[in-house]
Amino acid sequence: MTETPFSVEILPDNVKVRARAGEVLADVLLRAGIPLSLYCHQRGVCGKCAVRVLGGPLPFPAALEASLLEKRGLGLDHRLACLYIIRGDVTVETLPGSRLESVAVLDTGLASAAYVEPAVKKLSLVLEKPSLFSPTAVADSLKGQLKSPGLGLSLAALSKLGRSALGPRRPLAVILYDDREVLDIEPDEPGREVFGLAVDLGTTAIVAELVDLRTGRIADRASAVNAQSSYGADVVSRITFAFENPDNLRRLKSAAVQLINDLVGTMCRRSGVPRHRIYDAVVAGNTAMNHILCGVAVDSLALAPFHAVFSALPPLPAAEIGFALHPQARVYVSPNIKSFVGGDITAGLVAADLAAKPGTGLFIDLGTNGEIILKRNSEFVATSTAAGPAFEGMNISCGMLAVPGAIYRAEWDNGFKVRTIDDLPPQGVCGTGLIDILAGAVTSGLLGRDGRIAGPDKRIRLTERLSLTQQDVRDVQLAVAAVRSGVRLMLREFRLGAAELDRILVAGAFGSSLDLSNAVALGLLPDVPLEKIAFIGNASLAGARLLLVSRPARAVAETLASKVSHVSLATRPDFQDEFVRALEFDRYPKSE
Amino acid sequence: MTETPFSVEILPDNVKVRARAGEVLADVLLRAGIPLSLYCHQRGVCGKCAVRVLGGPLPFPAALEASLLEKRGLGLDHRLACLYIIRGDVTVETLPGSRLESVAVLDTGLASAAYVEPAVKKLSLVLEKPSLFSPTAVADSLKGQLKSPGLGLSLAALSKLGRSALGPRRPLAVILYDDREVLDIEPDEPGREVFGLAVDLGTTAIVAELVDLRTGRIADRASAVNAQSSYGADVVSRITFAFENPDNLRRLKSAAVQLINDLVGTMCRRSGVPRHRIYDAVVAGNTAMNHILCGVAVDSLALAPFHAVFSALPPLPAAEIGFALHPQARVYVSPNIKSFVGGDITAGLVAADLAAKPGTGLFIDLGTNGEIILKRNSEFVATSTAAGPAFEGMNISCGMLAVPGAIYRAEWDNGFKVRTIDDLPPQGVCGTGLIDILAGAVTSGLLGRDGRIAGPDKRIRLTERLSLTQQDVRDVQLAVAAVRSGVRLMLREFRLGAAELDRILVAGAFGSSLDLSNAVALGLLPDVPLEKIAFIGNASLAGARLLLVSRPARAVAETLASKVSHVSLATRPDFQDEFVRALEFDRYPKSE
Repeated sequence: MTETPFSVEILPDNVKVRARAGEVLADVLLRAGIPLSLYCHQRGVCGKCAVRVLGGPLPFPAALEASLLEKRGLGLDHRLACLYIIRGDVTVETLPGSRLESVAVLDTGLASAAYVEPAVKKLSLVLEKPSLFSPTAVADSLKGQLKSPGLGLSLAALSKLGRSALGPRRPLAVILYDDREVLDIEPDEPGREVFGLAVDLGTTAIVAELVDLRTGRIADRASAVNAQSSYGADVVSRITFAFENPDNLRRLKSAAVQLINDLVGTMCRRSGVPRHRIYDAVVAGNTAMNHILCGVAVDSLALAPFHAVFSALPPLPAAEIGFALHPQARVYVSPNIKSFVGGDITAGLVAADLAAKPGTGLFIDLGTNGEIILKRNSEFVATSTAAGPAFEGMNISCGMLAVPGAIYRAEWDNGFKVRTIDDLPPQGVCGTGLIDILAGAVTSGLLGRDGRIAGPDKRIRLTERLSLTQQDVRDVQLAVAAVRSGVRLMLREFRLGAAELDRILVAGAFGSSLDLSNAVALGLLPDVPLEKIAFIGNASLAGARLLLVSRPARAVAETLASKVSHVSLATRPDFQDEFVRALEFDRYPKSE
Repeated sequence: MTETPFSVEILPDNVKVRARAGEVLADVLLRAGIPLSLYCHQRGVCGKCAVRVLGGPLPFPAALEASLLEKRGLGLDHRLACLYIIRGDVTVETLPGSRLESVAVLDTGLASAAYVEPAVKKLSLVLEKPSLFSPTAVADSLKGQLKSPGLGLSLAALSKLGRSALGPRRPLAVILYDDREVLDIEPDEPGREVFGLAVDLGTTAIVAELVDLRTGRIADRASAVNAQSSYGADVVSRITFAFENPDNLRRLKSAAVQLINDLVGTMCRRSGVPRHRIYDAVVAGNTAMNHILCGVAVDSLALAPFHAVFSALPPLPAAEIGFALHPQARVYVSPNIKSFVGGDITAGLVAADLAAKPGTGLFIDLGTNGEIILKRNSEFVATSTAAGPAFEGMNISCGMLAVPGAIYRAEWDNGFKVRTIDDLPPQGVCGTGLIDILAGAVTSGLLGRDGRIAGPDKRIRLTERLSLTQQDVRDVQLAVAAVRSGVRLMLREFRLGAAELDRILVAGAFGSSLDLSNAVALGLLPDVPLEKIAFIGNASLAGARLLLVSRPARAVAETLASKVSHVSLATRPDFQDEFVRALEFDRYPKSE
């Protein structure tokens, strides 16, 4: 008999599982599905996995374990789950502070199964005193104490270890990346938290968030129009500009880097967080934006067949990109799906958690490109449509980004009643406002289903100052048709009818909310019961934040990026016909 | 029956082995102990492992294979061993150019079992043309073609891939580090070889070699007095200087870096090799020298118990150290054995190949520290003795480094007959000369066994101008006693007598040859038959070169560094007694 199965009762979950003698309690709790915080990766140095032992063997704690429990103010009946070895039947109670915290991913409150498990962690420890009899090098003592023989130590970190102020017997804080690389070593003092930066690197606008990596909470958010716009409004013009000569590529790169550094400066000033306490960043942008940010030549994106140079990148030194954060900070670039679908979409897909949901699902990101990903069970197919900048309010005579003052909702009631972001006086119309207005105009007869404006002056009046022109309507009409034909061809790829879709997730930074019934009435979205559709807003930003605070999310993103197959609409013979048929402002035909 | 054993006959070795159907020929040859060149790591892109198929199945070669064979001017009956699958009995003949080349490690011509297998390799290939239907990113095509999904690509390398000049269908050269990291990508043009730098970073002198990484051949060698000497002649004074303030550490670091860059400049000028074609460097120095070169604070080496900060380091970016080589070049620092025995000694041990030799062995490196490593079967024990700089000719009134003009051999024949390096007029005496002179002086009665000089003027005259003083003799006497007591305590550690030593390898940069009988007569080396002793010269430099051209040697060094146990002489109660007894210029007592 080498195995004695014991019973482990877990409160307050009221879960009972069997465990073998010699098993580590932490492993048993994980096996039972308890989301236990294993911040230090079961090295016994962080104290986060403490549990209360209500019944069963209670051996003396080790010296470090006792001091960690004492630090948390826990009583004598507490132990660290990562050090507790099963030796008999046991009843334990998990503590609120010992469980993983969920990440609030989407502003819309859609549930997420993700927990805070960042790549950057801060561990506290005291190095053992060396002696003449144990000639172990200081770095090797650190590796031993962190149970990490392959621990990566930069020369900067080694040099700090060599300074007597950080020598043996002094309390140290080690900032660890991915549980295997030391970013910094410093005296362990309270109040020095670790922060991260999430960036939605849009062609039009850049949004950044400062995030507390311990809790996953957003400390601040800042945004600005992408400073690269002065070199070209859209991706294609910027690729062309960069292709002209390497200096142009550098100009575009530094415009984005400088702007992000400025946004970081603003957030740091407002929140009181020093720049050098930002150790990790995630950037979600489209393929061209990612290439330019990394300073990678985009010649291959400028010339047919328009291939990306890279899809996924390993974490990069932030200093190499030019970000002014901690000198050893890392940047994770959300991976592209092959050449054509950007890392912003991968991030959005991760935030939408589409992969984890059963059945069929459609993810639509409405930006300059309409990106469409269709899922059936574990199969994914993706495409991009050239929707143009209409959904972002660009090229529309009175269009604007979804910023304060933008009309984001409108209702026809013998004239348009409009709502603006932050209730400011209306300055223009953003994407979601355009959908409402066109739907209302069709209902009221101001606009034909063919997109022709009735009446002599060919204008749809919104307010005294603001109106849409025939040209504006045509731009939206083309954008809607691009998305609609894309969705229909994707459905055809999997031989699915719209009615077979279990859910549709619509993402985009083009408004703070989207009227789904209007979107369906215009034919932008398939005609399915509205409860199957959700508008999840800026999913790229939410995804960037998720990738920042959850390492498992990075694994999901990388799997998605490699497994999604891509369909190029341009290579499909039925695309033109589908596109022309989609040029009517009307619901999807019921037959499909 | 899933396995059909076939016969593989290998010429010109006349070896016959059995192989299963489906096995790769290259694996079969390796299994048979044939040193086959697998330069591209069996990726089928370098063509180096070509063999002639004299009998047996001969399927058509793949397109790339055929072009590689054609490039080497080989006939239709040749195939690449890494692509040839066993499908029947076969007779193959290896070609001279398809076998690994041995490394000439030691100038003394001692044999070495090492083959040229450098960390940096240059592979030639042509990327496949992408299409709209295969949206693979360019970098992913490269990974696929190199059969290396985890291939590391720097942003600099990615950016080059993005430039159309290096795009698909153009012949590329990929400079690969450790078979998994791309250092550079360039148009594939002939004559662009890859070079490496081996550095013996001595406290007193720095010697550098420029090495062709494809062949292991030395292209040039250059040396100079360590420029750090102006901040302190010995290690302790430099550690103290660095400890005083961080600026001093930076001064010491840049003195060494600048000097090495100058030596590289000299060698590149002389050999016509551009600096940027040096992609890898190995540095072998003692613990303090390594720390200072890396800019790592040496506080812990300045204060008892004198611990190193690091023992082994991962390969570092050369630019981080400050070396002016290829921008992406790497530096491998020969690992320390724990805190007290430096990477120069590890390198020397690897060059001496002590680990591979059976039985017992003693390795003595005579420098400012006398480093002693004793091996019994697979056990190793090491110690350092403070020999002082006498063996390097320092602190001796007419002493000098082993450079042209130094007396390196001397014979007593009613006055000293001396030989100088390069036969120049004698300028002073180097370490090996001192040994000869003192041995001769004892034999002739000029010098007592207690180290007292006979005669009124207390001088040993060498030439008209040169003589040794009583103080000079005392310095050598202390140095010899330090080494001798160290050796005796090491032997005691393993309960071995000197007669049980199978071999003694004496290393040191203190002369171009050492008269072993004189070294034994003075008691510097144990009294064993002279054929058991070999003087191997500057083993640190030879070891640095070996680590540069042989990755397996790096693995040996790392294993040694972690498995050698260290004895601190200072902590042994019998050290003082042994030291005093060793102060006599005489052979080892026969009893031990």
